[in-house]
Amino acid sequence: MAAPGWSDRVRELLRRMNSFHGAGSSKALCLPLRVAGQQVGHVPQAVAKRLCQYPSVFSVSQGKEAPAYMELNVQLASWEQRTAAVQEVLQELRDQQAFPCLKEWREELYSVRPYFCDTPLFSMERAATPLLGVKRYGAHLNGYIWQNGQMYMWLARRASNKPTYPGLLDNLAAGGIATGLGVTETLIKECQEEACIPPSLAAQAKPVGTISYTYEGAHGGIYPECQFVFDLELPEDFVPQVGDGEVQEFYLWPLEKVKEAIGSSDFKPNCAMVALDFLIRHGYIQPDEEPHYVELVEGLHRTL
Amino acid sequence: MAAPGWSDRVRELLRRMNSFHGAGSSKALCLPLRVAGQQVGHVPQAVAKRLCQYPSVFSVSQGKEAPAYMELNVQLASWEQRTAAVQEVLQELRDQQAFPCLKEWREELYSVRPYFCDTPLFSMERAATPLLGVKRYGAHLNGYIWQNGQMYMWLARRASNKPTYPGLLDNLAAGGIATGLGVTETLIKECQEEACIPPSLAAQAKPVGTISYTYEGAHGGIYPECQFVFDLELPEDFVPQVGDGEVQEFYLWPLEKVKEAIGSSDFKPNCAMVALDFLIRHGYIQPDEEPHYVELVEGLHRTL
Repeated sequence: MAAPGWSDRVRELLRRMNSFHGAGSSKALCLPLRVAGQQVGHVPQAVAKRLCQYPSVFSVSQGKEAPAYMELNVQLASWEQRTAAVQEVLQELRDQQAFPCLKEWREELYSVRPYFCDTPLFSMERAATPLLGVKRYGAHLNGYIWQNGQMYMWLARRASNKPTYPGLLDNLAAGGIATGLGVTETLIKECQEEACIPPSLAAQAKPVGTISYTYEGAHGGIYPECQFVFDLELPEDFVPQVGDGEVQEFYLWPLEKVKEAIGSSDFKPNCAMVALDFLIRHGYIQPDEEPHYVELVEGLHRTL
Repeated sequence: MAAPGWSDRVRELLRRMNSFHGAGSSKALCLPLRVAGQQVGHVPQAVAKRLCQYPSVFSVSQGKEAPAYMELNVQLASWEQRTAAVQEVLQELRDQQAFPCLKEWREELYSVRPYFCDTPLFSMERAATPLLGVKRYGAHLNGYIWQNGQMYMWLARRASNKPTYPGLLDNLAAGGIATGLGVTETLIKECQEEACIPPSLAAQAKPVGTISYTYEGAHGGIYPECQFVFDLELPEDFVPQVGDGEVQEFYLWPLEKVKEAIGSSDFKPNCAMVALDFLIRHGYIQPDEEPHYVELVEGLHRTL
């Protein structure tokens, strides 16, 4: 059998990054997590079973004809109360080594809200978000130049000592949106820290949409993620510099080489998706030439 | 209570255009339609009941533990056989005035396939596709100019005698993809017919992605649609002309006016979505200013 072509390899990438939506996923078995009447996550069955041991915080409600859902105790009425109660449960589960993802505990609080624009209902340790299937947000930059009528894209190679995806290709700059920071603010901060792009230049980056996907982790955690995407046309003579050491090297590649890399295993998966979105939006991929054009666009935008 | 703002009106538009995914839709009650082992549609219960009266063509299979699905008789093994058998059933239902949408019978065969790139498994009367929830494809053009550092968009107003959405705003050119025509080919044809854009100019339009949505019609039909989107920067002095009479007038509007129109009821709904996608991709809508930015992008790309 012939090796799968570019198109098939990219479809496989998108299937993997949307494994929560795929056949055989735990989606149908997850319990929606409701807080103050609003859905904020998806709790895997094994996690729900464990959380039910803390009935003053988590409980499973069975509506009359509606499917079951997990709920935060309604008597926890404020951000402070919810945050403290959830954190105590998670700390105990961490001490019991109940779930592998809690080994990556970072002491970094992450906001939980129904929509990105909403006031956070509570905050929780970032490493634990996959246990509740809470959505994470980030900002990614496509940095490019025009040279002799051709487009070239700047890519980064992640440092080999990064805890996640060491040595893989990355967008020119990217990072998670921490509590209290705006989207553009996060982008400008990452541009400065990771690639030494001065804020005055980074501020010219153009917001061009988002990509959304949800995958299941190896240990059953749920990862709904949404990345805000920015394009920045850089001066032809601009050269990014390694900043905080999270990157080992930068490359300026023609789009054909970027396209090939997207279909390889050399790219951090969600960064490959951001680059693919760039190639599509800039007309580098043609609907009459790429047989799975529709599927590729849809795979970049899967809603929970 | 204050009148809903732009953001709320656009969210409502996207909810309406994705009503099949919403609470209270018939989605959970529809039967997947399988042909040669592949899913090609969603059949509403009332339609399925009627189709079961033709067991030599349609039947409902109940897997062991899997949910039920509707299937085209596997003995109909070729495109020709399936097309003839389905067409005969639909003709009979039309004669019986079984479903309102069949009143719009056009004698126009429409291809049915699992993915856009696949060889059609059969073809069917276009007016009947909502009965089987078969996906329709089209191509839409965002025509724009730059003038004094500002972007302006060309829009069309549909003729008042059009059978659908008379008198509403439309993209500069747009149309459904008929069997045998490619995506770009369709776009170029519509540009010529609707706005007198010469093929040499239309061919410079850049494919920039798709929008996808699924709504339920007033009479219970299912409308999964996917529009291929193109951007075309026009010469500053270019003026579109009314071609085949489907348009009554063209406007060249600043983006602020286009944005306002998107949040009004003056726009044909899917064309408003195409224009919204343009505003987002061109950075005219900012993630830190538009509270429902994520929801808007996701609403333009709902997968079945």
